[in-house]
Amino acid sequence: MTGTGIPTTTLPDTATPPVEAAAYREAMAHLASAVHLVTTDGPGGRAGFTASSVCSVSDAPPTLLVCINRTASAYAAVSANAHLCVNTLAGSQRSIAGAFGGRTPMAERFAAGSWTRLATGAPVLEGALTAFDCRIVARHPVGSHDVLICEIVALAPTGADESLVYAARRYHTLPLAGPPAPVEPRDAAA
Amino acid sequence: MTGTGIPTTTLPDTATPPVEAAAYREAMAHLASAVHLVTTDGPGGRAGFTASSVCSVSDAPPTLLVCINRTASAYAAVSANAHLCVNTLAGSQRSIAGAFGGRTPMAERFAAGSWTRLATGAPVLEGALTAFDCRIVARHPVGSHDVLICEIVALAPTGADESLVYAARRYHTLPLAGPPAPVEPRDAAA
Repeated sequence: MTGTGIPTTTLPDTATPPVEAAAYREAMAHLASAVHLVTTDGPGGRAGFTASSVCSVSDAPPTLLVCINRTASAYAAVSANAHLCVNTLAGSQRSIAGAFGGRTPMAERFAAGSWTRLATGAPVLEGALTAFDCRIVARHPVGSHDVLICEIVALAPTGADESLVYAARRYHTLPLAGPPAPVEPRDAAA
Repeated sequence: MTGTGIPTTTLPDTATPPVEAAAYREAMAHLASAVHLVTTDGPGGRAGFTASSVCSVSDAPPTLLVCINRTASAYAAVSANAHLCVNTLAGSQRSIAGAFGGRTPMAERFAAGSWTRLATGAPVLEGALTAFDCRIVARHPVGSHDVLICEIVALAPTGADESLVYAARRYHTLPLAGPPAPVEPRDAAA
């Protein structure tokens, strides 16, 4: 790319201090998002966690990203297996979102749902709004987290008509039925 | 990091073909997300676009990411200015989301709102749910898009009590008031 001063590796600029972490978390709490269980299984073990920092990157090839804290209990397994499944929760799946957060042991987390598999072997949650079975093709460390670039190799059938949404530090149920809107966000990746 | 087979640069594995782009877009359309106007202004010009592929990465330091198509009309300005503002839309701001999509000329897009500035000079939308003024500290090309890593240098005050949400190819208004939920997604970045 030409005409840009943006490096492809992180070069912190100390001239302008970043905002305080607490103020950032408070502002970020206003952002509504879908709720996902990110799961993995393989030689590195079975693990999963509740995540909201997931988004579409590109459809050429179909690629999403997942942000994961390097101190997360699932980090070692996700890293070693180099694959994961993003299970996007339906409106009725609020309780399993709770099971996959906090300090619940991995065995208890998975006991809270029924699971299948697609291509990679990562657990696919039955009844999820949709699921993206992915291989991790790159990772970019950013502060406390890794941004995992994930290419989609299989999709689960979709069925539910309500989405679980997390915003303002609480869960919401969002009905998805209805007519399409006349205008779509243009630069959304999908 | 040890114990991982994930490269820090993209190494496509051609053994398992990715899913079809159309199937991916259909599945991804189920994901609810906040709606953002991503804006910039500076030597590279003033520009902005509607985006849903925005998420929190870390609060140490406060960092978010934005995915942008390299063919987007705002791409050159964002790249040259190396800063941007993520304006998260309130429930009442559906019309300006439409103005910043499609093929609307930049001058018309900005005429649809009232603007202020914070630290970087990127336009900050009055009445937005919240706004994150950022410098771009790294970019990672992924397929058709760049993932822009953005450190937050200033925040706008928050005020609105409804969020605009995009899901299933239509806009929704989500009330944010109410008691906090007992369990938060644990591995969400903020």
